[in-house]
Amino acid sequence: MSMVCLSDFEAYAKKYLPKIAWDYFAAGADDCTTRDENILAYKRIRFRPHMLRDVSVMDIRTKILGSEISFPVGIAPTGFHQLAWPDGEKSTARAARAMNTCYIASTYSTCTLEEISTAAPGGLRWFQLYIHRNRAASQQLVQRAEALGFQGLVLTADLPYTGKRRDDVRNGFRLPPHMKVKNLERAFEVCKMSFLDPSVTWNDIYWLQSLTRLPIIIKGILTREDAELAVKHGVQGIIVSNHGGRQLDEGPATIDALVEVVEAVRGRVEVYVDGGIRKGSDVLKALALGAKCVFIGRPALWGLAYKGEEGLQDVLKILQDEFRLSMALAG
Amino acid sequence: MSMVCLSDFEAYAKKYLPKIAWDYFAAGADDCTTRDENILAYKRIRFRPHMLRDVSVMDIRTKILGSEISFPVGIAPTGFHQLAWPDGEKSTARAARAMNTCYIASTYSTCTLEEISTAAPGGLRWFQLYIHRNRAASQQLVQRAEALGFQGLVLTADLPYTGKRRDDVRNGFRLPPHMKVKNLERAFEVCKMSFLDPSVTWNDIYWLQSLTRLPIIIKGILTREDAELAVKHGVQGIIVSNHGGRQLDEGPATIDALVEVVEAVRGRVEVYVDGGIRKGSDVLKALALGAKCVFIGRPALWGLAYKGEEGLQDVLKILQDEFRLSMALAG
Amino acid sequence: MSMVCLSDFEAYAKKYLPKIAWDYFAAGADDCTTRDENILAYKRIRFRPHMLRDVSVMDIRTKILGSEISFPVGIAPTGFHQLAWPDGEKSTARAARAMNTCYIASTYSTCTLEEISTAAPGGLRWFQLYIHRNRAASQQLVQRAEALGFQGLVLTADLPYTGKRRDDVRNGFRLPPHMKVKNLERAFEVCKMSFLDPSVTWNDIYWLQSLTRLPIIIKGILTREDAELAVKHGVQGIIVSNHGGRQLDEGPATIDALVEVVEAVRGRVEVYVDGGIRKGSDVLKALALGAKCVFIGRPALWGLAYKGEEGLQDVLKILQDEFRLSMALAG
Amino acid sequence: MSMVCLSDFEAYAKKYLPKIAWDYFAAGADDCTTRDENILAYKRIRFRPHMLRDVSVMDIRTKILGSEISFPVGIAPTGFHQLAWPDGEKSTARAARAMNTCYIASTYSTCTLEEISTAAPGGLRWFQLYIHRNRAASQQLVQRAEALGFQGLVLTADLPYTGKRRDDVRNGFRLPPHMKVKNLERAFEVCKMSFLDPSVTWNDIYWLQSLTRLPIIIKGILTREDAELAVKHGVQGIIVSNHGGRQLDEGPATIDALVEVVEAVRGRVEVYVDGGIRKGSDVLKALALGAKCVFIGRPALWGLAYKGEEGLQDVLKILQDEFRLSMALAG
Repeated sequence: MSMVCLSDFEAYAKKYLPKIAWDYFAAGADDCTTRDENILAYKRIRFRPHMLRDVSVMDIRTKILGSEISFPVGIAPTGFHQLAWPDGEKSTARAARAMNTCYIASTYSTCTLEEISTAAPGGLRWFQLYIHRNRAASQQLVQRAEALGFQGLVLTADLPYTGKRRDDVRNGFRLPPHMKVKNLERAFEVCKMSFLDPSVTWNDIYWLQSLTRLPIIIKGILTREDAELAVKHGVQGIIVSNHGGRQLDEGPATIDALVEVVEAVRGRVEVYVDGGIRKGSDVLKALALGAKCVFIGRPALWGLAYKGEEGLQDVLKILQDEFRLSMALAG
Repeated sequence: MSMVCLSDFEAYAKKYLPKIAWDYFAAGADDCTTRDENILAYKRIRFRPHMLRDVSVMDIRTKILGSEISFPVGIAPTGFHQLAWPDGEKSTARAARAMNTCYIASTYSTCTLEEISTAAPGGLRWFQLYIHRNRAASQQLVQRAEALGFQGLVLTADLPYTGKRRDDVRNGFRLPPHMKVKNLERAFEVCKMSFLDPSVTWNDIYWLQSLTRLPIIIKGILTREDAELAVKHGVQGIIVSNHGGRQLDEGPATIDALVEVVEAVRGRVEVYVDGGIRKGSDVLKALALGAKCVFIGRPALWGLAYKGEEGLQDVLKILQDEFRLSMALAG
Repeated sequence: MSMVCLSDFEAYAKKYLPKIAWDYFAAGADDCTTRDENILAYKRIRFRPHMLRDVSVMDIRTKILGSEISFPVGIAPTGFHQLAWPDGEKSTARAARAMNTCYIASTYSTCTLEEISTAAPGGLRWFQLYIHRNRAASQQLVQRAEALGFQGLVLTADLPYTGKRRDDVRNGFRLPPHMKVKNLERAFEVCKMSFLDPSVTWNDIYWLQSLTRLPIIIKGILTREDAELAVKHGVQGIIVSNHGGRQLDEGPATIDALVEVVEAVRGRVEVYVDGGIRKGSDVLKALALGAKCVFIGRPALWGLAYKGEEGLQDVLKILQDEFRLSMALAG
Repeated sequence: MSMVCLSDFEAYAKKYLPKIAWDYFAAGADDCTTRDENILAYKRIRFRPHMLRDVSVMDIRTKILGSEISFPVGIAPTGFHQLAWPDGEKSTARAARAMNTCYIASTYSTCTLEEISTAAPGGLRWFQLYIHRNRAASQQLVQRAEALGFQGLVLTADLPYTGKRRDDVRNGFRLPPHMKVKNLERAFEVCKMSFLDPSVTWNDIYWLQSLTRLPIIIKGILTREDAELAVKHGVQGIIVSNHGGRQLDEGPATIDALVEVVEAVRGRVEVYVDGGIRKGSDVLKALALGAKCVFIGRPALWGLAYKGEEGLQDVLKILQDEFRLSMALAG
């Protein structure tokens, strides 16, 4: 099996992962309309390519919140990487560092923040946070991340409750007994997530700012109104995201929402996007529409499922090559 | 078989109901374009979700014509519930009462109004009426319903003749001998329905008003012109409906028609909608577009077919949970 | 097999006709895009139904060029009816007369005009004409038709050459030896049709008018420009037609073209339409968009293939019932 | 197997060519969206046919850059014709001359320019050029072509790097050992093409003009901006092309791009188009939208694969017949 494009990794993961793990990663809310729209929306966008530009030398490096990365593709926060590969998030961290890009580690990692840091010292990492009913627990997590050298705090805003992913309900999805959500003190009960606080509001951004000097990036914004609020509350970055179509079904595709968010933000903070990136040309489209960088979720998991750290690097290299080629061909 | 969403109940009913009963419930007129459009039209509507609202407490109760229901989903009038479950409409009435919502009992029930009332005393119920050639029969029905405590009279306006449902013609559909349309004196001949009066006009609303003090809700309105006429003739409510796509094929989807009816009515009477509701997010869309409440037809029958009263409650609970989750996720 | 709708007759004909005959009747030009568009375009048109109109009595009779027909559906000219039923056009003529509607007999009939007349004396019939290189032959045909009591002359304008119907080429389609295009003196070579005159222009309408006192209806008009020319040249009627999608592929669907033709004609001559009529509601749509009457082509052949005269009557009766029901349900 | 339309040749080639050759010819970049869009975009364009024009005599000859061709369809440059037929480009040249049309020979021919010239003396031919890192090699090729009587120089502008054609990567596509890219001195390594110069810019047009008196046609233009630049740099013709969807995926279909290019050019140079031509009516559409002539790529290869020179003539004859018929039927 030759791994030529990201779909090859998807096919591999679907074939070799346990069904319950594949279903969990693949799941979308309800009818999976938004999950699929994230991809279809990219296909509806057309390039206007220009010819006979000198494309012999191209610099694809960029900076996000001041840190240079080798190309504008980072790793979005997703949970439970040990479901994809035994070493879990440690492999993810190593691959991201090897490719010189940014990895957003999830609260729901199956490795501790400390293990992740130790696995790939010096890598650029942000930490993704859910605010818990027990605010002290959240505070402790933020401060651990800061102390370990994470350089950004990503607040997920679209999960007051977990979306309805039918296959997970059917499968009675839960982590196998030998895996743990190690960043949380007590054993984690996946399907309930009852410690998430649905009463979180924009004012909690101020509370977070009081806890840490890390820049705050808000993830899950889909409208100009919320983008305006995010800027007003002093965040440093926005990730346009619909949680991979796993939360509210039948909202906008992220690449479509990106346009209105970028317009509302008017350059005051950096805007990123995740969801539906499957080809280097998707990255180019997102950048052309105003994103500073994109993040990949499921494709990173497919890479892990294929060959751990090495597989994820393969995925990133393919995206990098395709991105560079698209830039050249689009002039 | 785990029952996670309404489609699971549909699959169950299709598998376990006698073909002739399934076909009757599933039937749409002609090419079934409108039946299917009712569902597709919901999928075309996109949310604009807002984040970081306090969604820890949500009140999903509402009032229809002054009566409180636990959430804005009622049971639309459909005929022949014994085809789905031996206890027929008695089970329906019990499930609706248990869930504290409104049940619109059909003229074409296989239980009498009295049986329905006795089965679930105190439940909120409306009575659905066709006007017959024999006006005295209609008058008697209305007055029975009023005496039994039904709290609304739903006049179906879109059935001067029965639509052409090809499978019913092919199957030679008729009720099995042991079932009867008990509310009508003489044995009921399904396929002819020749006692329906196709000469009914808007003036007959005045006649109905002279018979009863019950509020009159007109069902089957799809245009602003008819909505205006309904208001002018003094009805208390409008159900935007195309009879589940069983009458005129290739008219508008109900969720599309809702918009123009709500606009025409300008709040003067309550507007409801039925047809195509399959998920809690569909309910939220209908409410966002101006409906006070929605009614479900086929899904209620699937619930009955699954486990009678209990199955219908399952259907309603799923819709309730999904509706609440959609509200939270949409902010 | 119960014959409930026109598709049932189509399925029957496809199953029981010799492949070469089925292919010939079903054929569209090139990719059959226009043939299929004729049907799809009807599906895109939506009714705005109105309720509570008195629809107890409906008069569906109409007049075309002064002659009353029982409902606004006639038989379009199609060739070679003996391929569908042994009695060929004689059966067609009898069915049309029995249903009191108009039958347009084709030049390419497998019965003579005299046989057709004799089979159903007194029926309303028009004669369809191609202009031949040998004008004398055309003149003789016109005068025979007039003498036999045909009441209209339909000039087909869209066949200067025969369209490319791939299956006919593959099948090497030609009439079986025992069938003849009897209206033409010499044996007929189907695939060449080399006696058609591609140099015919609008001026030939004047020539036709000089030959006959019959009203002239021009068939094959699809644009406002040609409609204007038709009126200017003194025709009495226009049939909006694309020859069932058998001539130029990827032109407009007839129901779409009807709108602009009706607008251009502004009531100065009668406008009809053929192509894509499969349900009574299609007839209603065509009338609502300005057609005085529609004509059916392939469905008539399917009726013949099913049971000859009787089968064609079945087809017409179904359309009539469906048309009447649609009218009632649309208010 | 009767060869009635171009799809028949496609089916034949798919069946009888070695998979690696078929895949190479069929390949599109990435998801093949643009390759397929080239065809779909033609289907979205509708004719407005006019009737009763005298179409008994039609002249379908045209001139491109002053040379008459028998009808407005030429052979686009494609590589490696020996993969389709042993005689390779010699057969192509003979077929083009027999049909009196223009053949654009590719740099990546498996025959030398001299062999091509000798095979069909007197045929109208243009030479397609990529600019190499080694400019002397390119210069030598241009001057050989001019000396051999090629009458135009086609500069391909959309291949600074080769597009990503997944199947070719999977197949490890390379020429069989007995075939060579004979026009280049050293053995050709297909997948690298590293001798292509990605630093080529518009200024290199001036360099080309200094080398030759041949008219220069630029191939690969898709936007009005580039069309304007092309005119400004003094080219004689533009081929609107996306390289058959083999370079940047998800750019515009060529027939859509043609419209804006024609508009920008305002008749100052001739505009041609390739990509997606499968029927004579496609040719007519392209001409109606402003193309002076179209070029076919894959269909020519299918013709070669069928019967070499004779097969390609069959393809051209079918297009010619269909084009003539479309013109007649569209009036």
